[in-house]
Amino acid sequence: MYQLFGNCLIGQSGGPTSAINASLCGVVEQALKSKCIQNAYGAINGIEGILKRQIFDIGSQLKSKDDLELLKTTPAAYLGSCRYKLPAIHQDTETYKKIFDIFSQYDIRYFFYIGGNDSMDTVAKLSQYAKKIAYPIYIIGIPKTIDNDLVGTDHTPGFGSAAKFVATTTLEITRDSCVYDVDSVTIIEIMGRNSGWLTAATALARNEYNSSPDLIYLPEVPFSIDKFIEDIKLVKKHKKNVVVAISEGIKNVFGEYICETVNQGFTDAFGHKYLGGTAKILENAVRNRLRCKVRSIELNILQRCAIHMASKTDLEEAYKIGQQAVKSAENGYTGKMMILKREPGPEYKVSIDSIDIHKIANVEKKVPVEWINEQGNDITSELIDYIKPLIIGNVELKLRDGLPVYLVLDTTPFAPKKQEKVV
Amino acid sequence: MYQLFGNCLIGQSGGPTSAINASLCGVVEQALKSKCIQNAYGAINGIEGILKRQIFDIGSQLKSKDDLELLKTTPAAYLGSCRYKLPAIHQDTETYKKIFDIFSQYDIRYFFYIGGNDSMDTVAKLSQYAKKIAYPIYIIGIPKTIDNDLVGTDHTPGFGSAAKFVATTTLEITRDSCVYDVDSVTIIEIMGRNSGWLTAATALARNEYNSSPDLIYLPEVPFSIDKFIEDIKLVKKHKKNVVVAISEGIKNVFGEYICETVNQGFTDAFGHKYLGGTAKILENAVRNRLRCKVRSIELNILQRCAIHMASKTDLEEAYKIGQQAVKSAENGYTGKMMILKREPGPEYKVSIDSIDIHKIANVEKKVPVEWINEQGNDITSELIDYIKPLIIGNVELKLRDGLPVYLVLDTTPFAPKKQEKVV
Repeated sequence: MYQLFGNCLIGQSGGPTSAINASLCGVVEQALKSKCIQNAYGAINGIEGILKRQIFDIGSQLKSKDDLELLKTTPAAYLGSCRYKLPAIHQDTETYKKIFDIFSQYDIRYFFYIGGNDSMDTVAKLSQYAKKIAYPIYIIGIPKTIDNDLVGTDHTPGFGSAAKFVATTTLEITRDSCVYDVDSVTIIEIMGRNSGWLTAATALARNEYNSSPDLIYLPEVPFSIDKFIEDIKLVKKHKKNVVVAISEGIKNVFGEYICETVNQGFTDAFGHKYLGGTAKILENAVRNRLRCKVRSIELNILQRCAIHMASKTDLEEAYKIGQQAVKSAENGYTGKMMILKREPGPEYKVSIDSIDIHKIANVEKKVPVEWINEQGNDITSELIDYIKPLIIGNVELKLRDGLPVYLVLDTTPFAPKKQEKVV
Repeated sequence: MYQLFGNCLIGQSGGPTSAINASLCGVVEQALKSKCIQNAYGAINGIEGILKRQIFDIGSQLKSKDDLELLKTTPAAYLGSCRYKLPAIHQDTETYKKIFDIFSQYDIRYFFYIGGNDSMDTVAKLSQYAKKIAYPIYIIGIPKTIDNDLVGTDHTPGFGSAAKFVATTTLEITRDSCVYDVDSVTIIEIMGRNSGWLTAATALARNEYNSSPDLIYLPEVPFSIDKFIEDIKLVKKHKKNVVVAISEGIKNVFGEYICETVNQGFTDAFGHKYLGGTAKILENAVRNRLRCKVRSIELNILQRCAIHMASKTDLEEAYKIGQQAVKSAENGYTGKMMILKREPGPEYKVSIDSIDIHKIANVEKKVPVEWINEQGNDITSELIDYIKPLIIGNVELKLRDGLPVYLVLDTTPFAPKKQEKVV
């Protein structure tokens, strides 16, 4: 290991989470303290922005404690994001050459990329290329995703806050669902195309005065509308108001998304395909077959941006994992993703470590089958115990006129200093 | 005026709001202090429950300050609700006879009904019947609705909290909508079948770092999909990420709901009508005509049950209006609805008064046309100024395991004491 002197660049990628800016905050704060890092730069719209030289000086604007705190509680990816998959190195060396030319022009020796599965693929490829051309740089991935589907880490930053919003909202919806003396079915649709972690978080709404959601369906188990209707009928035998939680990504036995299979039947007057949500489709199925009051609720992007319901535990972990990423890089680590390790024992405690990026990129962590009940319509207590500590603690937002205040920075890109010298 | 001694009965009716239980709390607390009121009873599911003798003793269970505080922040109508329209007195005297027999059996001399427009119709009819049969009782309506469509009062309890949730969520969605470097249109659907007050609250999300929502459509103005598309095209000329707020109740020039007109074209394989939301229909229209990324978000019942984002101002007003209702009844008022009066002057201040119930029942207060811009796609600053003070202040929830704690009472109905004597 040898120390590198130069600038650091931070990017965010993939879908936003409530905790993604807390990690950014941790990186910037630690970078500003570092003896090796001169400037902390932000890349606008991730790797896509880097290719367009959309780089601005975030560190010089983030020196006050207040600003750093405000960044933590500002929703959505502060630096902007992208969904950009780098080509394989042997297929398109030009893109890599361009990125590393830009790295060199801005004297980037530390690169931190905050993202999910696809973003870790970017970290893996860039690390590989850096090694190949022997460009001296430390590259670290920082996990975030509300889906909690990254392997190697106990859980992902962002998941706890989304879980807290989902559980709180489910509890509120459940209470709302039983105000009328009328039989009803309420279907809540939660994000998660291939993994059901977040949908499972609805179970946290159960307590001594609320037994709902009564049924929970995850994408890990094949879904059948007929079975779904039968399940509801069974619950209705002893309960007036049924609440069901479903993952947007539930699939039939052939692996086809329910929303895609059923939508095929719908076209408008122009012959355009009507794209509805999974819950809406099930709402119609329940209404047509059970003839009772039914409502579907898609929690939609609120799950990833409702910072007003963030988990303090989640934001703190996201912040610390950002700080630790800088320390790891200073210690010569590269081609790694930071991870959270849950310590054994009755009390919840995590430590931060890192793992070789090639072990985790492009692998999805699904809910283990042993944490789903045999009927495939609920989860086990082990899964509830796993999620429970992640939603602890409220985050206090700074308010003005009754609404949260967010951070505003000047994100105007600047030309690199090295380039200026050339001109 | 003469004082009546006996019990009080409280009912809730119509859609829940975040503030409806704060009013209930105010009534119970004041009733317990009253020298005229012996017991404070709750009617389960409003007038529908009264007819079934679903009456329980809420007052005896609500004596600690902690329980009263917890009731304030418990979402959804605590007593349960109904959508029951009383028949005209001359058409069906039996129903009225039954209600007043039950009132007599439970020795009810004070009746408080917390609800919206339809509930005030109930208050009006019961007051009229009491007068007709000279039954000594004081009957008072306490307004609540997230729709803010009751006349006679400056605004309705429940509106401020819904407005705060809507504005906060719009701000969060707006930030989320611009994380990618891709042209996009986001359509947010807000509750309001005939009045656009709540949709207007999205405008509060605008501040020095956010100019969205860019377009706002209320049900008070006829809606045209063609004009809507043209409006978006205009905004897109200078803005990458367009955010639009629409009322669920927007109607075409013939007064037909957009969701009903367009849905006619959709049936599934079984010939069943596909019921979609208004925003979903517009999402499809934008996608088909503008060929850009588009997303629709229905805030759904979260608007009325998301107590985690309640306005402190709203909850306080709802609580006080409940207390004041009891005081008014003690002072011999009956056949009235309590109202909030905004005092003139730069500082926001309200006083509480009452108004003859016949003046307000079954009348809808719509957004005045002078508070909507000429184009019919935005609101004026007067309307923003009107809503602004109503969302001030956060409500701190009591938490356990990271989730809000709600009040649990024994709501087992009991037989009236008088009846017991008879048996």
